Amino acid sequence: MKREIPYKTYLSEEELPKSWLNLKAFMPEQHAPFLNPATGEPCTAEDLEHVFCKECVKQELNSADKLIPIPDGVRSFLRTFRPSPIVRAYFLEKELNTPAEIYYKFEGNNTSGSHKLNSAAAQAYYAKEQGLESITTETGAGQWGTALSMAAAFYGLKLSVYMVKVSSEQKPYRREVMRTYGADVVPSPSNTTEAGRKILKEFPGTGGSLGCAIAEAVEMAQQTPNCRYVLGSVLDHVLLHQSVIGLESKTALDKFGVYPDTVIGCAGGGSNFGGLIAPYMAERLQGKNETEFIAAEPASCPSMTRGKYAYDFCDSAKITPLAKMYTLGSGFMPSPDHAGGLRYHGMSPVLSKLRDDSYIKPVALKQTDVFAAAVRFARCEGILPAPESAHAILAACNEAEECRRTGRKKVILFGLTGTGYFDLAAYKSYNEGTLKDFVPTDADLEKGFASLPKA
Amino acid sequence: MKREIPYKTYLSEEELPKSWLNLKAFMPEQHAPFLNPATGEPCTAEDLEHVFCKECVKQELNSADKLIPIPDGVRSFLRTFRPSPIVRAYFLEKELNTPAEIYYKFEGNNTSGSHKLNSAAAQAYYAKEQGLESITTETGAGQWGTALSMAAAFYGLKLSVYMVKVSSEQKPYRREVMRTYGADVVPSPSNTTEAGRKILKEFPGTGGSLGCAIAEAVEMAQQTPNCRYVLGSVLDHVLLHQSVIGLESKTALDKFGVYPDTVIGCAGGGSNFGGLIAPYMAERLQGKNETEFIAAEPASCPSMTRGKYAYDFCDSAKITPLAKMYTLGSGFMPSPDHAGGLRYHGMSPVLSKLRDDSYIKPVALKQTDVFAAAVRFARCEGILPAPESAHAILAACNEAEECRRTGRKKVILFGLTGTGYFDLAAYKSYNEGTLKDFVPTDADLEKGFASLPKA
Repeated sequence: MKREIPYKTYLSEEELPKSWLNLKAFMPEQHAPFLNPATGEPCTAEDLEHVFCKECVKQELNSADKLIPIPDGVRSFLRTFRPSPIVRAYFLEKELNTPAEIYYKFEGNNTSGSHKLNSAAAQAYYAKEQGLESITTETGAGQWGTALSMAAAFYGLKLSVYMVKVSSEQKPYRREVMRTYGADVVPSPSNTTEAGRKILKEFPGTGGSLGCAIAEAVEMAQQTPNCRYVLGSVLDHVLLHQSVIGLESKTALDKFGVYPDTVIGCAGGGSNFGGLIAPYMAERLQGKNETEFIAAEPASCPSMTRGKYAYDFCDSAKITPLAKMYTLGSGFMPSPDHAGGLRYHGMSPVLSKLRDDSYIKPVALKQTDVFAAAVRFARCEGILPAPESAHAILAACNEAEECRRTGRKKVILFGLTGTGYFDLAAYKSYNEGTLKDFVPTDADLEKGFASLPKA
Repeated sequence: MKREIPYKTYLSEEELPKSWLNLKAFMPEQHAPFLNPATGEPCTAEDLEHVFCKECVKQELNSADKLIPIPDGVRSFLRTFRPSPIVRAYFLEKELNTPAEIYYKFEGNNTSGSHKLNSAAAQAYYAKEQGLESITTETGAGQWGTALSMAAAFYGLKLSVYMVKVSSEQKPYRREVMRTYGADVVPSPSNTTEAGRKILKEFPGTGGSLGCAIAEAVEMAQQTPNCRYVLGSVLDHVLLHQSVIGLESKTALDKFGVYPDTVIGCAGGGSNFGGLIAPYMAERLQGKNETEFIAAEPASCPSMTRGKYAYDFCDSAKITPLAKMYTLGSGFMPSPDHAGGLRYHGMSPVLSKLRDDSYIKPVALKQTDVFAAAVRFARCEGILPAPESAHAILAACNEAEECRRTGRKKVILFGLTGTGYFDLAAYKSYNEGTLKDFVPTDADLEKGFASLPKA
């Protein structure tokens, strides 16, 4: 009799990856380089080192090494919450009455509640190793800020988090978690920076924006001795740190002789999706599999399904380097009532390149369908998912239902990036039937595209 | 070289206990029986079956069987979130500079956020097996209500949760989690019951109380066809279901040849503490160890350290059977500003008997010290603990610091029952320095004792 695959599979701590997988080193062609917005020339390491930690810059520009060792000091913190489990979604399969096998990699079993802690660990470690005293970042919903607060506390670094003001008011408890870990949470715009003071003068009552928070965090990092700025998504080195998700998934599934036909992740800036697919995409690029890669994005912020592949700013304040990526334009703003997360206007340059080369299939999903899938999942599998993660759940359910119709026994792997414990205002809207869908019209998109820098 | 014990140890799913351990069957003397408040006679199974599920009543009255098999249908749900990890608290040991080895059993890795789900699973399963259509319960802070909502959704039962009104207003998100899992959450007092209507008429603006919520839930269960009431702590069968905590801990530690000198748990009604100590206490009662058992309770609600061992009502509405237990009197109310949880006036009859027989050492802790220990723990071990669980953290730190003074290499095991993600209002008070300690005076206690039934 075939041994039944357990519901959950945990690797041992020795099986925690010893190296990150650098997907770029497997790509036949690299994405276009970052451009310095002042000169229009490719960014040098030096340009980037004014803003980011040295080691992260080195990783950002490294497309040669397939494996990059994870320092013991990073693994030491990672093992407080990793390896994370691979779960066979038996109860969801039964609920869907599908012949498909569904697996999910669950990244929510840590206090930050998401996969963001994987890169926070590495970036805080490198900051400490470089002899820095403090780091800065911005946060919108708060997942990234929480993750970095935990990592900063662990490594003994000071941290200032610029939190979008309206978000810090709507989510006082997110703010409180960060403070509990010792972070200084500054509602943005603030009086602590030139950028903040300027905005406050122009728009005295503003609730802030991510673009403004980024500008404040970068300015503070540059003006504080022994300080650097840290970012939680989009960049190549962040995807690199997130490759532990895919590496652990593969090690666990290999044990059972399981190889996914389809790998699904939600995609905002791309850090989770890029990390999850890493080892399977590396094999795809070597012609070793025919695996399909589906990026699930919100219909209200459809960068990969409806965006342009072009150079754009990573932030709406237009102070960061230009990246070539799928983008809706840095001036694009999804509806403020969009509750499903993944609100970023652009997409990781690595993933954008893979999308352009047809290795990734993006799908855009409506948030009422996403929340319906989230509730269905919670009731049969137990875990209350983050709205972001629920995009991947819905995409996986759609694939599994297609299998029911065709009878195909596909193996589906999706990333469950986090929990929805701090998203209950959104669940409340859904439960009460007041949640609405927002799909930008072509005219809305044109307005966003108008903000793209001239070629 | 001795193999290093991993940070986290997960058992495999096959190692999930197949039987619960019935601590009562190891006790040389049983606790005094429940009394029917109308007759003053010991409760019969029939008395109890009007309120509770049959199988739970059978377990409640069973002091003969040392092991009681866990049905496959319960194990099936348990494996969505169990086995839970045993963690070696290396970073806390380093922080405390102690020669002691500290281990904790972490029960917070599920959406309900605590150990409560262990008994919710069993009780919902038995309700379904009995052919019931619905169950009722009450909840204060919301941990138990959330756990039961998840279990009811999994087994396909309707659930009404009577939630203390002031709590449902202060914690709208707790309420929302339950609703997301399909539970009907009724702020108590309500118009749905006689008990509720009576209170509303007498005290129109009242914010409710746990006693009133219990009364409403019991009344609703008795007046609804095919419905029973379900309780999350105090009772013997709840402690039985929680023995999985101790059994898994022992299996995991046995693998490394580790045997605790001290086992520490927080204690409100006693369900977590009773479950954690079960296998070690069973061996203690057989003279096989000299392990010390420390129950950590809040100084503001000190039932085991300052209460009386006497017959008392389990609820403040005085409608439940009388139990012999350590109690502050059902009329005792801890300060409403007490944020640390564990507010129950009494204590599990099993644990009360063991305390009376000197097998358990209770300690009472002040909440400002408890929150300080919680923050210290969060920053080095990563997990943000529930205030309840932080009582055990503080007691463990105190023991470990004593070891630093004496040089003794004690092995300490404590229960980390849950996470503090829904307790951030309390953390906010602590972070802002406005949290106060409340220690009842002897006169306060006398007022509570005055509510004890006459012998």
